[in-house]
Amino acid sequence: MKIEVFFTPAEAATVDLEGRVAVVIDTLRATSTIVEALANGARGVLPAPSLEEAIRVAQNIGRSEVLLCGERRSLRVDGFDLGNSPLEFTEDRVGGRSLVMTTTNGTPAIVAGSAARRVLIASFLNLSAAAEAVASDGGPVAVVCAGRERRFALEDAICAGALIRRVAAAAGLDEGGGDWNDAARLAAEYARGMEGSLETVLRGTAAGRQLIEAGLEADIAYCATLDRHRIVPELRDHQMTL
Amino acid sequence: MKIEVFFTPAEAATVDLEGRVAVVIDTLRATSTIVEALANGARGVLPAPSLEEAIRVAQNIGRSEVLLCGERRSLRVDGFDLGNSPLEFTEDRVGGRSLVMTTTNGTPAIVAGSAARRVLIASFLNLSAAAEAVASDGGPVAVVCAGRERRFALEDAICAGALIRRVAAAAGLDEGGGDWNDAARLAAEYARGMEGSLETVLRGTAAGRQLIEAGLEADIAYCATLDRHRIVPELRDHQMTL
Repeated sequence: MKIEVFFTPAEAATVDLEGRVAVVIDTLRATSTIVEALANGARGVLPAPSLEEAIRVAQNIGRSEVLLCGERRSLRVDGFDLGNSPLEFTEDRVGGRSLVMTTTNGTPAIVAGSAARRVLIASFLNLSAAAEAVASDGGPVAVVCAGRERRFALEDAICAGALIRRVAAAAGLDEGGGDWNDAARLAAEYARGMEGSLETVLRGTAAGRQLIEAGLEADIAYCATLDRHRIVPELRDHQMTL
Repeated sequence: MKIEVFFTPAEAATVDLEGRVAVVIDTLRATSTIVEALANGARGVLPAPSLEEAIRVAQNIGRSEVLLCGERRSLRVDGFDLGNSPLEFTEDRVGGRSLVMTTTNGTPAIVAGSAARRVLIASFLNLSAAAEAVASDGGPVAVVCAGRERRFALEDAICAGALIRRVAAAAGLDEGGGDWNDAARLAAEYARGMEGSLETVLRGTAAGRQLIEAGLEADIAYCATLDRHRIVPELRDHQMTL
């Protein structure tokens, strides 16, 4: 089973994703938040690559018809309804609503992955469900890590490694081998043994430290929770739904 | 001590390298070959970003005055004097000569690093000498991994990790901490324990497997040798010298 991990969207852009199932990961916090929103009944999440585009899409649909969500420098954008904290996306707030979302790293990664045959959304919150969906698809896999400001982010690498270890287990395959790329092999090996201390590890990453400084450390504990939900958001017609 | 590792030249290009000491690593094989060439008496190595540019530079200097070196798909370029195998760069062939070199991944990484205050060249062959030079410089460090075709390469990550562990030791500092980026922390942690089996690890990487297929597996063993030379090539006036 061909499994490749890309630590940044730019790396994913160097290969042809056509025919693959892409899994997009932005552990802190966009893909965790998308999972949470859909688990709590949001109708769909439209990713937008920029603030301007998010506002334009919201106005096209009808500003009061959608919730505008997203962050810059970890914080909710002025005039937006919600930020990028999974704890905000409660059933009360998002149930039955359509969301338009833009985040610094997550939404560009979703856009980068969108050339793939399928685009799934993963985080620790839905890790096992996402792995089972990938294994049952059976096609070649491209895990696209959002990274942080176009650079490597440790929390995404660990989540990618934990994911593909579960994919291998669900598919009854050995880890690694010739059809896993270097990044997949490193990520899987590094993730092994980290799962017992996810919150501690995530707090120590650059993204984790930035969240703590911004007063958002509760988000880290939340995003470090394994398998809270058994759902897998998928991008279809420019929108993530279940 | 601020230490950042960038797994690809594109990641390094997202930050301002001014004021930093950059260390460029292309373990298989460009920086290993540059170290070997200078250790064997080459006068200097001029990196060129493309075949066309390498040929143009060589013709400007005088084709017979220089050795044209480099590879595409691991193999010596037609009409070039040498390829990119460190074993070719003997004292007989390169002693006293000026070299113009172009390789798929290594020379673009050197060009990417060239915005830094200093640009040093590292490989396993000169690992401890490079680490000591970095530690005694004392400035912020940017390790630029060449990667492979604009993607992550495991052998460069391990070499980067082994390097910065030695930098920390030489500077009397603990590994990691807030002023190491996520990639530096992963690389250092992963490299620990790999040093006893470098050749095996390098053979299993994507670059290693490509060299084996091309009949160049002796290069892997050579490039996996720790501290064969006590020299540190440095880029000055567009040329790497001692």
